[in-house]
Amino acid sequence: MDEDASVYKGSAATGENFRRRVAVFAGLVEYIAIPDSQGSTTTEIPGGTDVLKKQSQKCYRKQFGLWLFLLVVNVFAPVAFAEDGYDLWLRYAPLDHAPKGAPGYVQVACDDLSPTMQVAVDEIERATASMLSRPLKQTGERRARSLVLASPACQEGVASGSLPSVEDVGAEGYSIRSTQLNGRSVTLIAAQSDIGVLYGVFTYLQRMAEGKSLTQLDITDKPATQLRLLNHWDGLDRHVERGYSGQSIWDWHRLPGYVDPRYTDYARANASIGINGVSLTNVNADATVLTLPYLEKVAALADAFRPYGIRVYLTARFSAPIEIGGLDTADPLDPDVAAWWKAKADEIYEYVPDFGGFLVKANSEGQPGPQDYGRSHADGANMLAAAVAPHGGVVMWRAFVYSADEPEDRVKQAYSEFVPLDGQFADNVLIQAKNGPLDFQPREPFSPLFGALPQTPLMLELQITKEYLGFSTHLAYLGTLWEEVLQSDTYAKGAGSTVASVIDGQLEGYDRTGMAGVANIGSDRNWSGSQFDQANWYAFGRFAWNPDASAEQIARDWVALTFSRDPAVIETITGMMMESREAVVDYMTPLGLAHLMGTGHHYGPAPWVDDLGRADWTPYYYHKATADRIGFDRTATGSDAISQYAPELQALWSDPETVPENLLLWFHRMRWDDRLEDGLTVWEAMVGHYDHGVAVVSDFQRRWETLRLQIDAERFGQVSDFLAIQAQEAKWWRDASISYWQSVNHLPLPDGHAPPEHDLDYYKSLSFPNAPGQGR
Amino acid sequence: MDEDASVYKGSAATGENFRRRVAVFAGLVEYIAIPDSQGSTTTEIPGGTDVLKKQSQKCYRKQFGLWLFLLVVNVFAPVAFAEDGYDLWLRYAPLDHAPKGAPGYVQVACDDLSPTMQVAVDEIERATASMLSRPLKQTGERRARSLVLASPACQEGVASGSLPSVEDVGAEGYSIRSTQLNGRSVTLIAAQSDIGVLYGVFTYLQRMAEGKSLTQLDITDKPATQLRLLNHWDGLDRHVERGYSGQSIWDWHRLPGYVDPRYTDYARANASIGINGVSLTNVNADATVLTLPYLEKVAALADAFRPYGIRVYLTARFSAPIEIGGLDTADPLDPDVAAWWKAKADEIYEYVPDFGGFLVKANSEGQPGPQDYGRSHADGANMLAAAVAPHGGVVMWRAFVYSADEPEDRVKQAYSEFVPLDGQFADNVLIQAKNGPLDFQPREPFSPLFGALPQTPLMLELQITKEYLGFSTHLAYLGTLWEEVLQSDTYAKGAGSTVASVIDGQLEGYDRTGMAGVANIGSDRNWSGSQFDQANWYAFGRFAWNPDASAEQIARDWVALTFSRDPAVIETITGMMMESREAVVDYMTPLGLAHLMGTGHHYGPAPWVDDLGRADWTPYYYHKATADRIGFDRTATGSDAISQYAPELQALWSDPETVPENLLLWFHRMRWDDRLEDGLTVWEAMVGHYDHGVAVVSDFQRRWETLRLQIDAERFGQVSDFLAIQAQEAKWWRDASISYWQSVNHLPLPDGHAPPEHDLDYYKSLSFPNAPGQGR
Repeated sequence: MDEDASVYKGSAATGENFRRRVAVFAGLVEYIAIPDSQGSTTTEIPGGTDVLKKQSQKCYRKQFGLWLFLLVVNVFAPVAFAEDGYDLWLRYAPLDHAPKGAPGYVQVACDDLSPTMQVAVDEIERATASMLSRPLKQTGERRARSLVLASPACQEGVASGSLPSVEDVGAEGYSIRSTQLNGRSVTLIAAQSDIGVLYGVFTYLQRMAEGKSLTQLDITDKPATQLRLLNHWDGLDRHVERGYSGQSIWDWHRLPGYVDPRYTDYARANASIGINGVSLTNVNADATVLTLPYLEKVAALADAFRPYGIRVYLTARFSAPIEIGGLDTADPLDPDVAAWWKAKADEIYEYVPDFGGFLVKANSEGQPGPQDYGRSHADGANMLAAAVAPHGGVVMWRAFVYSADEPEDRVKQAYSEFVPLDGQFADNVLIQAKNGPLDFQPREPFSPLFGALPQTPLMLELQITKEYLGFSTHLAYLGTLWEEVLQSDTYAKGAGSTVASVIDGQLEGYDRTGMAGVANIGSDRNWSGSQFDQANWYAFGRFAWNPDASAEQIARDWVALTFSRDPAVIETITGMMMESREAVVDYMTPLGLAHLMGTGHHYGPAPWVDDLGRADWTPYYYHKATADRIGFDRTATGSDAISQYAPELQALWSDPETVPENLLLWFHRMRWDDRLEDGLTVWEAMVGHYDHGVAVVSDFQRRWETLRLQIDAERFGQVSDFLAIQAQEAKWWRDASISYWQSVNHLPLPDGHAPPEHDLDYYKSLSFPNAPGQGR
Repeated sequence: MDEDASVYKGSAATGENFRRRVAVFAGLVEYIAIPDSQGSTTTEIPGGTDVLKKQSQKCYRKQFGLWLFLLVVNVFAPVAFAEDGYDLWLRYAPLDHAPKGAPGYVQVACDDLSPTMQVAVDEIERATASMLSRPLKQTGERRARSLVLASPACQEGVASGSLPSVEDVGAEGYSIRSTQLNGRSVTLIAAQSDIGVLYGVFTYLQRMAEGKSLTQLDITDKPATQLRLLNHWDGLDRHVERGYSGQSIWDWHRLPGYVDPRYTDYARANASIGINGVSLTNVNADATVLTLPYLEKVAALADAFRPYGIRVYLTARFSAPIEIGGLDTADPLDPDVAAWWKAKADEIYEYVPDFGGFLVKANSEGQPGPQDYGRSHADGANMLAAAVAPHGGVVMWRAFVYSADEPEDRVKQAYSEFVPLDGQFADNVLIQAKNGPLDFQPREPFSPLFGALPQTPLMLELQITKEYLGFSTHLAYLGTLWEEVLQSDTYAKGAGSTVASVIDGQLEGYDRTGMAGVANIGSDRNWSGSQFDQANWYAFGRFAWNPDASAEQIARDWVALTFSRDPAVIETITGMMMESREAVVDYMTPLGLAHLMGTGHHYGPAPWVDDLGRADWTPYYYHKATADRIGFDRTATGSDAISQYAPELQALWSDPETVPENLLLWFHRMRWDDRLEDGLTVWEAMVGHYDHGVAVVSDFQRRWETLRLQIDAERFGQVSDFLAIQAQEAKWWRDASISYWQSVNHLPLPDGHAPPEHDLDYYKSLSFPNAPGQGR
């Protein structure tokens, strides 16, 4: 063997590997020149910051072993260390320069820190160490600006009157001010409660993480709603209904003996966006969770969440008194039943003193409920409410009901059942209504319940997990969907009566307010099944805190915290996000179509299905396509569902000329050759939307590719792969849908649109017995 | 506020937090003095190495920012970075000193590296960078010792004759030698194949990682078996039967579009212990995996595994020709059925050219099979074997059968069915038999099939997942169980005819050999559900490679690689592991008892169950306890199962005086007051075993606690919590069992033994509807 020729043959490829590994590390050490195999240095590693550059270069040569160590960390645990999405929007990537006003040390104005205040201090330490690459000072130095945390329980030594008033921030709000305290410049985070301080700390740190100014701060904020809950549809067997991110993160079997550190990470992430409650179990409820062994497990979770201001809630199976209580009825007016629930509530509060209350799905989709005994929803809700009332608990009673009998129009049912009950609910009952009258579709109008229950606090239920929007592999930022709902005008009290103003209680003067999001969190390493679905979790928290928030601003903040502060990166990704939900509408359910998804699992298109157990489970029920027409007539000539809305909306929506085109087929049964405003026929417009949706996803792929050098490799690769899946599935949706419509309307494709790749039989033949997230 | 008094109030507690975080990092940076909140330095951080100490101290002061950065990494991503077990035995913890003989650079003797050789080079880079804290040289330097990798496809420029002969290492073995090449000292890793080189590299690197000498090496090794397979009992819905570590790691829904990087990490871990095959799907099979959409997914996994020498296998549902083939029979002698399987096999090989073959569970526990058509197991196996034979595939036909009719003694069945078929199987069929005649019990005698099928290659099936040994939360190292089985003497060809010698083919001269392990791998971050269950995965690979390996040596190696090279740590943990399986036997099924676990899920004790669908599903069937007696008479006076063993064993085991006490009640029906060798009655001995098992677990807790400062915090804490669960459950087993036996034998507890905590009704009342891993 020629020694000199024996260069390190594997080097080219492994050099690439090393670069890749370093790239995933780039947010921290992008400036390290890694000698590649050819002896040259790798210079193309982009992105990140160079906060350590100056300090480190002086010692570079002697310290090479140390630098190597950094690599080592990465190399020997590449997946553990890589940016795999586990850190969410709390990455606290290093800043280029310590920003003006950044704290030098932290003062907490009391001796005995509450667990919540301790969490706040820990978070500041963690974040500043990461972002500033220097430790906080451990003792006061006059030159260093301090960050002062103060709450009523924690204001020792603060001269009376030196704290600004925080009366107007409520129980959970905060004030962040650049001010003087005892003659020195400080940043003061003050609140009426320790949790308020923690929320203020998260706001302050996220400002810092986004590179925003930290001087001359005068921020006062408080949540617009009281209850900001995640609803987990998690089974005790860890199956998550409509879950696309692995199994339930609640490891019931190992609880309470093993409390996974992940539960704390979960609570921290929620607190960072203001979420203050978690319903642990599926609304299709299992009474077993109310038994003592499970209450012990629930208590262990509650203990882990408590420092983060998060209460636990449970779903109450209405028939639990029979199933686990030994009674022979669950009639809410039966005194034994009421006594059983009261005793059960007392027991729960022994285990979880700050238990939040019950979430109930009753008389819906086969769930038991008060109507089984001829009682009303109010009877059922009030009985449970009485059980938790002495402890300060609430009952959240879901308005998503549909009876065992097929209705003339399923979307009318919730309104029909609940409006007559307005005023009959106990003080600690909230009615929880989905955003639309049907079921979390890519687009539907807002539910007519909003504005129609002036005497009953109404919670908004949003679905964060994307049951009908492509599961975890489709990029579909829901912020725009939710903003559309929240800014919808109900006209309940004239123009400007937005859904947001109903939800935050302003319109009707509700005593209780809240918003719930069906969680998209599972055991997947990245929590949500995809990188982009983290944005929906984040956006839910932001909207629950402020229903008038801007979807675009939320997206920008999320991108800056999650991917990069680089304005170009923020622009590109935010742009993709803002277009993404409409793209899904385009390739799945354009022009106001709805519920065309595969039976049961809701994966992929199945508009042809017309023969299920009941008509209102079928896609056909919702589109009613014939050779001549398509759409559901919900005007006065049809189901008259439109009558559930305010007169102003009826006037607008009753006329196909004035209804928004994107709700056209929701309200109207149109001829395929009816012309729309732009002169296209319904059929031409529909095909155009399908193609547009497909094209947008293809463009997402192109745009994402431009970020290859700015995003760490693992997350970049996962998103790339998911976009490729989305592109394939968008085309599947488009092709299968067009195939089916053509089999009905016998119309040729408009010029310039490609025929479907396969025939209709092919699309009908596809089956997905193992699609994730199905109900059981 | 008194400024000077405003010390950093949160400091004491956060100092503790910091220490904890640093401690989990201690293997790498334990020498860093972290100023704690009081300004003093934290000195108690123990363990780890100080490889960087000298290089770093010089720059300590000016580089404080940099040190902080290290902390930052840790602090801002504590879970991602902490040692959470993801790295398995491949942590490559830094060495104190570069060992003599450590490589300075790597030479690979060819231009075009195969994917496997590339993997070998990457592994060396990764490992040495981690362990030596310096990079490999990128070009040859005469002073640096080189590591030379050579295989027949990769020996360019190596002078003919300068490579040692590797003829005797077989297709997968390797030679590692400290030798001279072209006049220079090198370490040469040579093999007949690239995968042999990779195995040699892993061996070499694990030697280095354990701190063993790297000089004067002369190691030649090769696997004793050809097929070293993990059997995943994973459903296409990601439910894992007998899985206690989350859900299946095969994310079928997102495949093939998304190939999780974890699949590569999985393949690498397997290759590092010599595993060369993976059966992906549950033996209770779903024909859907044989359809085209799933074959695309399987191919994506096979592509990820291929560089690591790992082939994929599938479980073949015998009725697939009916279920997905449109035939009306699955009769193996029907030409259409045979043709269907042949076409299916051809199709599979189009997707996966190196597909390994089929694993089949037929006519067992309700699975379809050839007996449904009056055909034999040989008929069924041979038909499938003919389908894969042209492609070099094999059929692994499981001997775990029991018929729909209740047998006189279930443990006799496999022998009764398969021994008459010996010699009737095709050349590419192996019979796969569980280690014992019953079902993966904490202890049972070896299966009498071993030694009884001289003309039929017999694979050993071990269960790595601990269905009957406490799931993932009980520390139960299975190496000792497996060693006990492998070293059992079948006397098939006289004394010394060990099970190991059957399995490796030496005793009977089998052409094909193999060992299968039912995988304990799932989506849990630590792969196996617990830290210690990783040892069982590791041990399985080691035993499959060398059935005569030492359980204790395997444990020592694993501890050194997984936790610490510190001899005291190795001693403590190895000691715990070596006692652990016997402790489980003691508190669950002492004296040869078996199958007393809860119905279906096998969680916890249920010896009282006697009324299931068939008698041989009940614990009562196996212990038959009455007021007078306990045990199953399997001698000539009973079921005569003992006649299935060699005469030497029959002589020994037929007599209660000479049968090993730990198999006493397996073979004999004893009076409760019969006296054992040590003078104790059966009852007294039994109670003694229960108490001993409980005491050993309690001692494990004590011993583990002594390691608090030597193990990183997250893994230490998880193990501590799991040991607490095990202690609680061991007591539960002991108390419930004693309660039940007393209800039968009405005997008082022997002196000095505490009464059960609860009465029998309490233990009977416990139910676990959501215990993990149940069959479906």
